[in-house]
Amino acid sequence: MPLPASQPHDLLVSRIEAELVRLTGTGENLMELVCRDALFPSGKLLRPILCAESARAVGADADAVLPFAAGIECLHVASLIHDDIVDQDPVRRGRASTAEQYGISEALLAGDGLSMAGLAAILSTGCSDRVLEAARVVVDAARHMCRAMLRETEIREDLTRGVPTALEVIRGKTAAMISAGCQAGALLGSGTPQQAAALRQYGEHLGMAFQIRDDLLPYTADERQTGKPALSDVANRHPTLPVLLAYEAADDADRSRLAECFRGDVAPVTAHRDVCDIIARTGAVAKASRRAQEYLGNARAALDAIPHPGRLTELAASAVPRGATCPCT
Amino acid sequence: MPLPASQPHDLLVSRIEAELVRLTGTGENLMELVCRDALFPSGKLLRPILCAESARAVGADADAVLPFAAGIECLHVASLIHDDIVDQDPVRRGRASTAEQYGISEALLAGDGLSMAGLAAILSTGCSDRVLEAARVVVDAARHMCRAMLRETEIREDLTRGVPTALEVIRGKTAAMISAGCQAGALLGSGTPQQAAALRQYGEHLGMAFQIRDDLLPYTADERQTGKPALSDVANRHPTLPVLLAYEAADDADRSRLAECFRGDVAPVTAHRDVCDIIARTGAVAKASRRAQEYLGNARAALDAIPHPGRLTELAASAVPRGATCPCT
Repeated sequence: MPLPASQPHDLLVSRIEAELVRLTGTGENLMELVCRDALFPSGKLLRPILCAESARAVGADADAVLPFAAGIECLHVASLIHDDIVDQDPVRRGRASTAEQYGISEALLAGDGLSMAGLAAILSTGCSDRVLEAARVVVDAARHMCRAMLRETEIREDLTRGVPTALEVIRGKTAAMISAGCQAGALLGSGTPQQAAALRQYGEHLGMAFQIRDDLLPYTADERQTGKPALSDVANRHPTLPVLLAYEAADDADRSRLAECFRGDVAPVTAHRDVCDIIARTGAVAKASRRAQEYLGNARAALDAIPHPGRLTELAASAVPRGATCPCT
Repeated sequence: MPLPASQPHDLLVSRIEAELVRLTGTGENLMELVCRDALFPSGKLLRPILCAESARAVGADADAVLPFAAGIECLHVASLIHDDIVDQDPVRRGRASTAEQYGISEALLAGDGLSMAGLAAILSTGCSDRVLEAARVVVDAARHMCRAMLRETEIREDLTRGVPTALEVIRGKTAAMISAGCQAGALLGSGTPQQAAALRQYGEHLGMAFQIRDDLLPYTADERQTGKPALSDVANRHPTLPVLLAYEAADDADRSRLAECFRGDVAPVTAHRDVCDIIARTGAVAKASRRAQEYLGNARAALDAIPHPGRLTELAASAVPRGATCPCT
C-alpha cells in the first residue's frame, strides 16, 4: 500500500472548516447562526486534526474521515458552550462567549443542537460496523466528559481532594475525547486493533499534557495569549492541578490562604495574585510542567506501534512551558 | 412466522424501567443520582413503548429493541431537564424539576450526560447497518427537537406567527422523536421500508395529537391532573396552538388583551384567567381538539399497512378532550 500523502496542515484545516460549514448550515435560522458563531473563527481544531491524522497514520486517506472528524469538533465546541454557561464565563477564544452574546437559554439549546449535528455527521460517515464501533468510542468519551464536568462542579472550592482528583477531571474533560478521536480515526482507517489501541493511548497522554498546559496558563501567561481571562479558574473556584500541587507542598499559612482564595472570600484580582505567589513559592509550575512532559513522552512512545506517525510525532513534541514566570509576579 | 406475543403492558413498562436502571447506573455518583432522579418515578414511557410496540407490530420480538427504546427515553428526559432550565419551571411531573432540586449547572450537565447515556444505549443495540440507520433517524429527530426548542424561545411573546408556526414547534418538539421511535422500532424489527415509513407517519400524527392535547391542558384541566403548573405557558410567554387559534378568531380588543398577557405585562394568575376566557369565547378549545382528532385519524389510517398493529391501534384511539371547560371559567 502506498504511503498516503500528508496534506499540508493549512489544507487539512480548510477542509475541516468546509466540512463544519457543510454540516451546520448556512446561518439561515437562529440555530445555524449561533452554531456557526461558536465554531468560527475556529480554534486549533486539535481533535479533528488528530482524528484525520490518525487515519492517515494507519495508511488510510484522511479525507474519508473528515465528516467524522468535524463531528468530533462539534461535540467539543458544544461542550465549551455549556462549560461557559456553568462557569458564567463571558469570554471564549478572546470573544464574547455564546451565552454572553445570545443568552443562556439560547446557548444551552444551541449547544444541544450542535452536539446532535456532530453526532449526525459521525453517523453519516459510512455504513459499516467500523463506523458503529468508532461512534460508540466517541459517545463513551462524550459521556465521560459530561461526568467530569459535573465532578468539577461538585468539587468546586475543595482543595483537599488531591492531585488524583485533578487528574481524573483532566482525563474526563479533555483526554477522553482526544483519545477517542485518535482511536476512531484508526478504526475508520482500517487500522489493526493494536494500532487503534496504541493511538488511543497516544491521544490520552497527549490530551493529559495539553490540558495540564492549559491549566498552567492562568498562572504563567497573560490573557491576550490565552483568550481566556487569567482570573477565570480562581473566580470560578476551580482548583486545578498546579493549585493542588501547590497545596500539597504548602505550609499551613499558605494552605489557609489558598483555601480563602478558592472559597470566594477574596476579590478575584487579589486572590489570583496570591495564588500565583504560592504556586511560584512551592515550585508547582515546574512540577506540573514535568508531569506534562512525562505525558508527552508516553504519547511519543505509543507511536512506536504506528507505521506512518508523521504529524502525530510533531504534535507530541509541542513545547510545554517549563517553570515559566507567573505574569502576576 | 408466528405472531409475537404482545406482552402485558405492565410487564413491558417494568422491562423498560429495568433497562433504564441498567444503563444509567446505581446512583453511586452525582451524575447517576441526578439522572435516576429525573428518570424515576417514570412518566408514561410513551416513546420507548411505541418503539418496542412498533418492532412487535412488524413481527419482531420487542425485547430485542429494549436498550434502544430506553435510550430514546433518556434523550426525551434529557430534553425535559433542559426545557425546565430554559423555562425556569420549578415543577415537572408534580415534583421539583431537576434544576430546582440540584441547581442549573448540575441540571445542564446531567441532561448532557443522560443524553449521551441514551445514545450509548442506542448504539449498543447490535452490530448491523440497521442499528446505524435507526440511530441516524433518532439523532436527526433529536436535532429537529433542539431546533424547535430554540425556535420556541425565539418566538416567545409573538402572537402574530400564526398557527403554522405553532404546528412547526409541536412537530419538532414532540412529533419528531415519537415518529423516530416508531420508525426505528420497525427498522430494528426488520420491517419492510414501507412498514417503517408507515410507522413513521403513524408516530408523527400521534405525536401531533398528543402535544395538542398537552397544550390544551393548561386551559382545560387543573394542575393536579397535569403535574405541570397551569400557569406555566402563560408565565413563560409561550403562545401555544389554542392561544394562536383564539388570536386568529378574536376581535381587536381580545387580541390586544392576549398580546398584553403574553408580553408579561399582566400578573400570571390574571393573565391566565383572561386567556382562558378568550380561548373559551373564540371556540379555540374545540378547534384544537378537532385538529388533534384529525391527527389521530391519520395515525390510525397509517396502521393499515402494518400486519399486527395491536396496542398501537389502542394508543391512537386515546381520548382527546373535546371542548372541555376551562377550569378558570
